[in-house]
Amino acid sequence: MPGGRRQRVSVVTLAVADVARAREFYRAWGWIPHSDGGDVVFFQGNGLVIGLYESAAFAADQGRPGATLGFGGVALAQNYPTEVQVDERYRAALAAGATILKPPARAEWGGYSGYFADLDGHVWELAVNPFWDLAEDGSITMPDDAVGA
Amino acid sequence: MPGGRRQRVSVVTLAVADVARAREFYRAWGWIPHSDGGDVVFFQGNGLVIGLYESAAFAADQGRPGATLGFGGVALAQNYPTEVQVDERYRAALAAGATILKPPARAEWGGYSGYFADLDGHVWELAVNPFWDLAEDGSITMPDDAVGA
Repeated sequence: MPGGRRQRVSVVTLAVADVARAREFYRAWGWIPHSDGGDVVFFQGNGLVIGLYESAAFAADQGRPGATLGFGGVALAQNYPTEVQVDERYRAALAAGATILKPPARAEWGGYSGYFADLDGHVWELAVNPFWDLAEDGSITMPDDAVGA
Repeated sequence: MPGGRRQRVSVVTLAVADVARAREFYRAWGWIPHSDGGDVVFFQGNGLVIGLYESAAFAADQGRPGATLGFGGVALAQNYPTEVQVDERYRAALAAGATILKPPARAEWGGYSGYFADLDGHVWELAVNPFWDLAEDGSITMPDDAVGA
């Protein structure tokens, strides 16, 4: 297909009230910024880039200056091989200033999952999903026989 | 580091008012669902999974039943090698029912970018970024000397 895989996410950009404050939260959570300077901070992820962008500038860049951007309707998940790693990364997020939404617990679908909100209200899920193949870098490949698991 | 790369996104989950309607939008845009059935639809992306989840159930799963989830504070970008491909995929999104936010145009940062909203208000950017390495599957690797470009 032209342009390669149609089901793709190259960049996830998060609207934030204060780029420096948001950068410090993610740095405190263990992330390493790729570039500083300007009004966007980028992090190199597992084949995608995660960006932090000041909300008003981001709304303008989206073609709707003055718009109020909402939060919570998108959740970004980080999957880990073990519940211990989920717990450790969850505690690290709280130590960095995150807000508890749902502490990590066994989920009825057979995995292990917790949610927190970052300083701006962006929702992160930390999870173990025993039904999906997880690479060392956090990438996921669903088995062909997955049935919504 | 334990658990591999800390800067990771394994799954992006989008809250939607009507899972069947949202599924049809993405199918019409050329995506192939990985699994059907249940209250979530999954798509296999470039090392990550994209899920559609009914809003009320998603809010409950996030540990805040009854919460109203917001939209627009996160944008997901698909990068392509050429402006022609951005234009083609943008037109395909409009044909599938997307709403124009900002038609594709040259951006002051040196790339080419357009934004649209899906049926629920989720923001997608389609872009060419000549400063970043783009793989066939849409994955991006930032060069070491990138300076916020």
